[in-house]
Amino acid sequence: MYSKETIAAISTGMSNSGIGIVRISGEEAFQVIDKIYKGKEVLSKVQSHTIHYGYIVDGKETIDEVLVSIMRAPRTFTGEDTVEINCHGGVYVVKRVLDTVLRNGARPAEPGEFTKRAFLNGKMDLSQAEAVIDVITAKNEYALKSSMSQLKGSVKKKIEEIRKQIIYHTAFIETALDDPEHISVDGYGEQLEGVVETLSEELKDLIDSSENGRIMKEGIQTVILGKPNAGKSSLLNVLSGRERAIVTDIEGTTRDVLEEQIQIQGLNLNVIDTAGIRETEDKVEKIGVDKAKEYAEQADLIIYVVDASRELDENDIEIMKIIAGKKAVILLNKMDLNVLISKENLEQQLHKEIGGACKNIPMIEISAKEEQGIRDFENLLKKMFLQGEISFNDEVYITNMRQKSALQDAYNSLKKVKESIEMGMPEDFYSIDLMDAYEALGSITGETIGEDLVNEIFSKFCMGK
Amino acid sequence: MYSKETIAAISTGMSNSGIGIVRISGEEAFQVIDKIYKGKEVLSKVQSHTIHYGYIVDGKETIDEVLVSIMRAPRTFTGEDTVEINCHGGVYVVKRVLDTVLRNGARPAEPGEFTKRAFLNGKMDLSQAEAVIDVITAKNEYALKSSMSQLKGSVKKKIEEIRKQIIYHTAFIETALDDPEHISVDGYGEQLEGVVETLSEELKDLIDSSENGRIMKEGIQTVILGKPNAGKSSLLNVLSGRERAIVTDIEGTTRDVLEEQIQIQGLNLNVIDTAGIRETEDKVEKIGVDKAKEYAEQADLIIYVVDASRELDENDIEIMKIIAGKKAVILLNKMDLNVLISKENLEQQLHKEIGGACKNIPMIEISAKEEQGIRDFENLLKKMFLQGEISFNDEVYITNMRQKSALQDAYNSLKKVKESIEMGMPEDFYSIDLMDAYEALGSITGETIGEDLVNEIFSKFCMGK
Repeated sequence: MYSKETIAAISTGMSNSGIGIVRISGEEAFQVIDKIYKGKEVLSKVQSHTIHYGYIVDGKETIDEVLVSIMRAPRTFTGEDTVEINCHGGVYVVKRVLDTVLRNGARPAEPGEFTKRAFLNGKMDLSQAEAVIDVITAKNEYALKSSMSQLKGSVKKKIEEIRKQIIYHTAFIETALDDPEHISVDGYGEQLEGVVETLSEELKDLIDSSENGRIMKEGIQTVILGKPNAGKSSLLNVLSGRERAIVTDIEGTTRDVLEEQIQIQGLNLNVIDTAGIRETEDKVEKIGVDKAKEYAEQADLIIYVVDASRELDENDIEIMKIIAGKKAVILLNKMDLNVLISKENLEQQLHKEIGGACKNIPMIEISAKEEQGIRDFENLLKKMFLQGEISFNDEVYITNMRQKSALQDAYNSLKKVKESIEMGMPEDFYSIDLMDAYEALGSITGETIGEDLVNEIFSKFCMGK
Repeated sequence: MYSKETIAAISTGMSNSGIGIVRISGEEAFQVIDKIYKGKEVLSKVQSHTIHYGYIVDGKETIDEVLVSIMRAPRTFTGEDTVEINCHGGVYVVKRVLDTVLRNGARPAEPGEFTKRAFLNGKMDLSQAEAVIDVITAKNEYALKSSMSQLKGSVKKKIEEIRKQIIYHTAFIETALDDPEHISVDGYGEQLEGVVETLSEELKDLIDSSENGRIMKEGIQTVILGKPNAGKSSLLNVLSGRERAIVTDIEGTTRDVLEEQIQIQGLNLNVIDTAGIRETEDKVEKIGVDKAKEYAEQADLIIYVVDASRELDENDIEIMKIIAGKKAVILLNKMDLNVLISKENLEQQLHKEIGGACKNIPMIEISAKEEQGIRDFENLLKKMFLQGEISFNDEVYITNMRQKSALQDAYNSLKKVKESIEMGMPEDFYSIDLMDAYEALGSITGETIGEDLVNEIFSKFCMGK
């Protein structure tokens, strides 16, 4: 299914750093390294999983001082003979080493080609291969945990279990229909209905997990609104300070605003910096309503910070209108000061402005300055965004949209099986839909997937993986 | 001289990629990895220079699937026990792995601390340590070659040879002065003068090599001027197409213009994109003279492209004024067309405009389109910018300004020795200046350098090296 050519690529990040790695995989990997390595040993002769100090040379010229790792098939990532050249991490020198490798028998690897070979060589199924890129792009703890679990085979195992049951029953039906004299399908529909019911529930759980999945993996798009000096910044500071946050830059973002990533109880909030919402130079301070509306429209969550120590003003009224019907939380801030606006005041005003739409908006009294009420707020977020507790011990989480869509297809096919049973259709109707479900699930593990789709999946990988 | 604490850092570039490396070095490196590695072996017990597949765990949580390299002291980069965790190259996951390492007994490494330890443990001298960062930041072939040569010890060896001679003669003088009855210094001055002469010449060669060094390492800042349609772009295309160029982005550049890096016969031209010099919408096409002047002022080289198929116009006159007194080359382009402007015409005009300043400006007839005369131009550049041939087989090149300044100090001290000899000063005068030269040269290899300066040198390194 794939060319056995020896491939090579730079596998580390392309910025000047301590170490860079050029990876070579394929039948001629050792021949290539023998040509360009100068050290004590001939690397094609050394033991697997050993490291060797020496130089990469290009003719008479020494390119770099390196450590070379030798790993013999099949006990490698790709399942092929693999060489990793651990060189100095300068952009030029790493390219120069790769260049030398390519001129000595390897060809440039395509994006994801190492992982694709791992899949094609049976080192992992497709769900695990997809987990590789998810591990790399993981931006928070949840994304990392769920993709690690998938990499270790949780999805694969689950899907295989379900498929096994489906094929068992399909086979039974087929056999019975072929040999009606010896095998009876009387009452089988009823039995099958129970099985299909159970399997459907399992699929449903997996599909539902992907809802958590998206929000957890990509983070909750959050906008904090509030009139000037209501305490938006203090709130941000308190939230980001409570947990040792690993803040990462958002790559490839096309937004023209800054986002701050905050982790709260395992949830990832991408807080859009509303400092970007320019205040007009009107006499009365006024937020840029249009901008705020726009962000609020796209947000998964709006946090409306109310200053309890000052009367509500027209800014507040504007914000109330914005949050109507949205997923929002109201934080009544500055409860440590002289409180002019109580929860009741606010509720009345809200009801006046947006009527029934205020019913679903929870309200919490806090003091960002004194760090009061923050834990309540965090727990509320968890309740709002996580259906049930996230635990990674036994549950399987789906975060991949392709996989979700395959699960949905399988679920729909099982639904048809149920309908056929209920409508008393002939047994061969069951087996057609069962096989559809089986096929759909097989596309998750990669067993029933075409070469084009495989290529498409791996083309989204980064170079060198 | 340094704390023996176990240190750790991310050694690969911080962008999502296939592989990331967390490096640990120090006495407790194996204890740290034992606490967080889950695999077949206990890594503290395995053989040196072996690779092990497994997982990094943080309590019950699996952080990543990894390959771990175990290298035992002293046969390591730092000279200490070293562990390299080869994990998935996602920014978050690499940070998470480092985080786990740090919470299990290592402390964050300072920039350059691994190399600093290599130096302090006698794995390399200071000139080699400085070469490490030069290899990483090398942007072209020359920079890479000269830093590799230095990394392999060329500078160290040369300096040690010179120092050995200096200390030999100093010791002789001191001994003779201590024991005048048995050792005579009669006529010694003359002998010493010859030695000092030779050593001074060697130092002078090294200092001179650094002139080549700067231009080669950093590239030649080049501006191409010429009236519209004179063939500036065609020239650029021809030049960049002639050699397989490895073009790298210029990091941390503060210029607001684009630069194209072109390699010509091992020379690196940083060509400022004069497309940025906006043409005014005057009736007669006119280049932005002020901008051009500004760039030309900063440039190491101006290439003035003349269109030989059209009459000289006011743009040409402006450019002639700009290049007066600068390091410039004139290319008489479009020699394949009907030539209106001959070399002689141009020389006359030049002389008229800038007088004697035109004497030192070489002129070459070319056709960018037909690729004629390009080789002549390249050879000219080599002659202009390289004093003698660059060969890396035996010659030592100095590219480091700190080293150059130490060489200059040593050179000056030897000059004083010569003066003392010529003035017939007492012998102890010689030895004082000889020792100064010896000290100055020792700062290059790091033998006579204070802790503060060592720290300063390594603080300029990148993280993880």
